[in-house]
Amino acid sequence: PETKLPHVGTTIFTQMSALAQAHQAINLSQGFPDFDGPEALLARVDHYIRQGANQYAPMTGMPTLCAAIAAKVERCYGRSLDAAAEVTVTSGATEALFAAISAVVRPGDEVIVFDPAYDSYDPAISLNGGCAVHLQLQPPGFAINWDTVAQAITPKTRMIILNTPHNPTGQTLSAADMQALQALVAGTDILLLADEVYEHIVFDGAEHQSINRYPALAERSFVVSSFGKTYHTTGWKIGYCVAPAPLSAELRKVHQYLTFSTSTPLQLALADYLTTDPAHDQALPAFYQAKRDRFNARMAQSRFSFTPAAGTYFQVMDYSAISDLPDTEFVLWLIEHAGVAAIPLSVFCQQPPEMKLIRFCFAKHETTLDQAAEQLCKI
Amino acid sequence: PETKLPHVGTTIFTQMSALAQAHQAINLSQGFPDFDGPEALLARVDHYIRQGANQYAPMTGMPTLCAAIAAKVERCYGRSLDAAAEVTVTSGATEALFAAISAVVRPGDEVIVFDPAYDSYDPAISLNGGCAVHLQLQPPGFAINWDTVAQAITPKTRMIILNTPHNPTGQTLSAADMQALQALVAGTDILLLADEVYEHIVFDGAEHQSINRYPALAERSFVVSSFGKTYHTTGWKIGYCVAPAPLSAELRKVHQYLTFSTSTPLQLALADYLTTDPAHDQALPAFYQAKRDRFNARMAQSRFSFTPAAGTYFQVMDYSAISDLPDTEFVLWLIEHAGVAAIPLSVFCQQPPEMKLIRFCFAKHETTLDQAAEQLCKI
Ligand SMILES: CSCCC(=O)C(=O)O
Ligand SMILES: CSCCC(=O)C(=O)O
Repeated sequence: PETKLPHVGTTIFTQMSALAQAHQAINLSQGFPDFDGPEALLARVDHYIRQGANQYAPMTGMPTLCAAIAAKVERCYGRSLDAAAEVTVTSGATEALFAAISAVVRPGDEVIVFDPAYDSYDPAISLNGGCAVHLQLQPPGFAINWDTVAQAITPKTRMIILNTPHNPTGQTLSAADMQALQALVAGTDILLLADEVYEHIVFDGAEHQSINRYPALAERSFVVSSFGKTYHTTGWKIGYCVAPAPLSAELRKVHQYLTFSTSTPLQLALADYLTTDPAHDQALPAFYQAKRDRFNARMAQSRFSFTPAAGTYFQVMDYSAISDLPDTEFVLWLIEHAGVAAIPLSVFCQQPPEMKLIRFCFAKHETTLDQAAEQLCKI
Repeated sequence: PETKLPHVGTTIFTQMSALAQAHQAINLSQGFPDFDGPEALLARVDHYIRQGANQYAPMTGMPTLCAAIAAKVERCYGRSLDAAAEVTVTSGATEALFAAISAVVRPGDEVIVFDPAYDSYDPAISLNGGCAVHLQLQPPGFAINWDTVAQAITPKTRMIILNTPHNPTGQTLSAADMQALQALVAGTDILLLADEVYEHIVFDGAEHQSINRYPALAERSFVVSSFGKTYHTTGWKIGYCVAPAPLSAELRKVHQYLTFSTSTPLQLALADYLTTDPAHDQALPAFYQAKRDRFNARMAQSRFSFTPAAGTYFQVMDYSAISDLPDTEFVLWLIEHAGVAAIPLSVFCQQPPEMKLIRFCFAKHETTLDQAAEQLCKI
């Protein structure tokens, strides 16, 4: 029988992590740290489990966590939020993205996405009967050409999906990008969905250009983030969405039937930690920049070429001096010949341009990075 | 602007729990225990968090948990499963239900649901462009009339949603129901979605009629269950779906973009507990039957009338001797005048028949039940 998602296979992250394990390769493919979150955060889970905090959280999130999120958004971006009406805790950022798309994308609506695009956007759009309009960003800089975006807008354009810092390229949007976006959507009904899960991982002194900084954009936006990336707990699957009350209300209609609510003890532990150590996120840029620089310094001796990531914990590298293979084949070759797993970039593009690029995750111990670089320098 | 779910408000569970709190009423509305899960289960979470099990679980679930689920299904229902291909761990049963519906219901498809129906089925069907065909079950027995079902089937019927033990009525399907269902769908392409989250809570020596017992049904079914109800941890939000490999493959395509995966440490704790204490679920019928009987014995002195629930931790009661108010108003009256929160049944029906019925949750300490019954006996 015909299936609803005929073109969807198993995500590249599952495939590559499984291959890495099968080959006992160093896994720099799927994005997750090989170190743990802060001790004070981890300890709070047991505290709340022993307090009996094991029943349903409120559908919109634990009030203490919503308040902590609002305080963080105010502190980092100067946006003042009504935590009860504008913050919704979700089962990871993935659920927030799916819920936002499901809440507003109607059959026939167009949604502009920039390729390479995180792989969950497209299936969510298509399950809702929408049509993803893919605009290919060009390597190596992957900058958005706003004239091209303007030309892609039609009366059916319902939403534009942004992702900064950008996975998989590690690029970031600039203040000029945000101005251009603002000019583009002014006077339209176009909604924005901003995937900002790497919001606290930006390098070289740059400031994250959150939608939260731009009231004229924020008023039409779902801003999605995640605790997994910031607190080294990707397996806890707690994310959130910030949106004006009317958009949050629509999002919650979907969220309450998608998952209803999210782990109570994990939410409470995060709420405490956000409140007691709000500076944790401020230390992340230096923390991850040191890892990027260490990995890149060693990789400078390899036959890969690259420009340093501007954000995220991913480094894209060009392997054209090493191989003519397409990237999906090169990553298989690389596992076998270098014992390192990476992610090919073409799988994130509807019509990939000519590019020989793969993505390494550097959210790893120094020893892991050193070992991986050593193996990668040999090929 | 028009919204995608114009008829959806905040779920009755959120509304009533909030009202209960505001009025400091005893909350017998939303279904969750006021006691904790087994100590040995709770203790394992910290164990795994300290072991560093804080990164993404595999998309389909932790292998140990999938294996424990397969072992349980084999032990309880004699169905042998391929854990890797036929079991998927989800963010609560709610996500499993949404993913199953999204995986197979196409625009224009009809889905038969029995009213009263759990409130998440309808929005999931409608977000997927499907059409819910509501068949009203008649109080007090709420039995399915299979001739009516046969008449409701059309070439567009894609799925029938079953729920046994049934929330909110506490009724269960019989072996004769399962035979009738089998005769009905034989030779058709109709799929089944079975919501069996109360599978281990059946009373008076009855056997739960799981789809898992009936190979001719199981081959076309998504069978959904939850750990929250069985292990007194509704706030952990871990559920699962059992389905033949081809159906599981479609479900997973959606699940991987809905939430991707579910809390790693909580999954590992459950896996251990299922393996070390497989008898926990066998003790549940007696455990909850004692609560049902205690509550009902006291309520026999009240002006409510009822027949004892056959399963679930919910008891439906008829208040027609007390009030002429519609049930949605009576529950408000009851909070004020008896200090007890309950759930009205009409909100689960598209066209509610004449009924004066509300639902009480008896997953509570004896003292809570005694106090609630005492207050309810006064009105
Ligand atoms: C949800 S698994 C994928 C993790 C991730 O976001 C990435 O590796 O890009
Ligand atoms: C997901 S909150 C509702 C809990 C429940 O299933 C019920 O009370 O019926």
